[in-house]
Amino acid sequence: MNGEFVVTPYGVTGDVDYDQLIEKFGTKRIDRTLLDRIGTYGPVHHMLRRDVFYSHRDLEWILNEYDKGNRFTLYTGRGPSGPIHLGHLMPWSFAKYLQDIFKVKLWFQLTDDEKFLYYDNLTLEETKKWGMENALDIIALGFDPKLTNLFLDTEYIKTMYPTAVRAAKKINFSTIKAVFGFDNSNNIGSIFFTSIQTVPCFLESIEQGRKVPCLIPCGIDQDPHFRITRDIAEGLGYYKPALIHAKLMPSLAGSEKMSTSSKTDTTIFTVDDKKTVKRKIMSAFTGGRVSVDEQRKLGGSPEICSVYQYQSYFFEPDDDKLKQLFEQCKSGKILCGECKGILFEKVWKFLENHQAKREAAKEIVDQFFVRD
Amino acid sequence: MNGEFVVTPYGVTGDVDYDQLIEKFGTKRIDRTLLDRIGTYGPVHHMLRRDVFYSHRDLEWILNEYDKGNRFTLYTGRGPSGPIHLGHLMPWSFAKYLQDIFKVKLWFQLTDDEKFLYYDNLTLEETKKWGMENALDIIALGFDPKLTNLFLDTEYIKTMYPTAVRAAKKINFSTIKAVFGFDNSNNIGSIFFTSIQTVPCFLESIEQGRKVPCLIPCGIDQDPHFRITRDIAEGLGYYKPALIHAKLMPSLAGSEKMSTSSKTDTTIFTVDDKKTVKRKIMSAFTGGRVSVDEQRKLGGSPEICSVYQYQSYFFEPDDDKLKQLFEQCKSGKILCGECKGILFEKVWKFLENHQAKREAAKEIVDQFFVRD
Repeated sequence: MNGEFVVTPYGVTGDVDYDQLIEKFGTKRIDRTLLDRIGTYGPVHHMLRRDVFYSHRDLEWILNEYDKGNRFTLYTGRGPSGPIHLGHLMPWSFAKYLQDIFKVKLWFQLTDDEKFLYYDNLTLEETKKWGMENALDIIALGFDPKLTNLFLDTEYIKTMYPTAVRAAKKINFSTIKAVFGFDNSNNIGSIFFTSIQTVPCFLESIEQGRKVPCLIPCGIDQDPHFRITRDIAEGLGYYKPALIHAKLMPSLAGSEKMSTSSKTDTTIFTVDDKKTVKRKIMSAFTGGRVSVDEQRKLGGSPEICSVYQYQSYFFEPDDDKLKQLFEQCKSGKILCGECKGILFEKVWKFLENHQAKREAAKEIVDQFFVRD
Repeated sequence: MNGEFVVTPYGVTGDVDYDQLIEKFGTKRIDRTLLDRIGTYGPVHHMLRRDVFYSHRDLEWILNEYDKGNRFTLYTGRGPSGPIHLGHLMPWSFAKYLQDIFKVKLWFQLTDDEKFLYYDNLTLEETKKWGMENALDIIALGFDPKLTNLFLDTEYIKTMYPTAVRAAKKINFSTIKAVFGFDNSNNIGSIFFTSIQTVPCFLESIEQGRKVPCLIPCGIDQDPHFRITRDIAEGLGYYKPALIHAKLMPSLAGSEKMSTSSKTDTTIFTVDDKKTVKRKIMSAFTGGRVSVDEQRKLGGSPEICSVYQYQSYFFEPDDDKLKQLFEQCKSGKILCGECKGILFEKVWKFLENHQAKREAAKEIVDQFFVRD
């Protein structure tokens, strides 16, 4: 795990060493003290307890301000390039947890412009269509419509553009090259885009006409955008946004980040039917041995098992039960087939419910959207 | 005049050789045949007869389409960074002439975003304010409100943005570097901006839902933007815009292009009072001799005289009268003081009238603006 790796919003290569990434990016680890402090506001989410959300910038400051009565706003987003998979839901359900315990407003950005600019095979109509589709999955998670503003960039651009050009004036191409690894062959929309991604950090401040702190729960691959934002925020008259970073959810193939486009067989989409979900989970990469006999004798390796990781990241919030599963695997008491079966039951129960809420979301989608 | 010179929308350096510029840019000269053809639609404007509008791209095609009943649309614009001077009015009054003889719609863009992005000392509020101020001068020229759509970029961005990102996706930074001479120190808003300047070429097509030809009357320094537009137009499903290019109006100091910001004493603003106008014209650079005696004997040099150029570009549409003035100067019959006095009378008469219309424009400005 000490090899070369690169993490940007536009590509992750190599085996990511998340500890090293904290040093590389200059973020801070979420330590025991901070976890305990979060525990004073509500239950500590299992993604925090298990180091899934493991890094931050200025989270203490956000809580200090909150304690003083200066409520923060949340900002997260989605690049709508295709259907939603379970890996996408992870940080969003965490955002909902934050909304629930702190009772704060969430700005949820759908970057239809970005995905069009970065994907050769997508039209702007398609990314916009995906944005509206993806919104159903977001709403299905149960966000409070009174505290949630969803928007498509192309539909909210009149509000965002003045702040985007103010941001853009403070960012030169040298910075973009250094932060995202771009070169002269990048299109000028992709070069400009980080200005658009910057704006939602300030939308609550703009709306309220005063400086409002902003907390961004996101995958750590998105951090580079907000490093730029933090550099320019004060010059624009706003607070630097704070961040809380998640590791990237592994796919059923065991790789570091789920992929929407290529690996459809190792990725569970929210609209998959029961048979498909079963097939995908049953062919997942595990930490099992070459034979049943050997596994009964030597036990499996949950540390590298994608089925175990799904339980840990998302489907088994109870620490005791998770520990039990870990030990059953290690001791050879449970075999991969049975373990996959258990995960499948949980995933399908979740998805059946999610799909019903997703349908119901069609009736209330307008309560969530803000448009120019 | 064979030295080095560079002409881009963001700077003109060196002595511009307008003949060489045609070759450099790959445009076509407006020749006798084309002038005669324009004469079949209406009077040939003195700026055409005198080679002020002297170059074009695809103007024959625009007329061919017009003859077939496929009416074109006009597009021109203004970067609102300060008050309007006489040099600005020149291409706009030519645009009005085109609107009058062809009875076509004009899209008039006020690039408040651009001027903010390119001028360190201007805020977006200021460029927007200048845009609304400048609009009064534009309207004062007498454009037909039924055939004219004026807009500020920041107020029309929701309409323009989808087309801007479609354009941006087809333009990489290498192109921007080559065309505008930019480098890594340019801010990412300025790099993106040409996408916004591209859109109005297609606004009529977007509005009508079919391909509409577009003709852009502009200073030849603006051509680089539209070379890019022409390269990508067909890929976006539109016609390449056609252009008709003006030379850059010299200032009263005799330099190649009027400047708004620095040389306020050699530039006549539309809001200048009588005394100021008189002072500026009376101190203008002329082609006069060192002494009255010498000038009476040897005559002046109207070819290099800014006062004569003002007459030629704008204030003396009658060719015979202009010729008479030229000869009176050459033969020493008229001296600079008298000549300046004649120009002053004309300029002030024009400005007095313009200022009244500019005031009246405040009442009808809303008839011209389109907003999201």
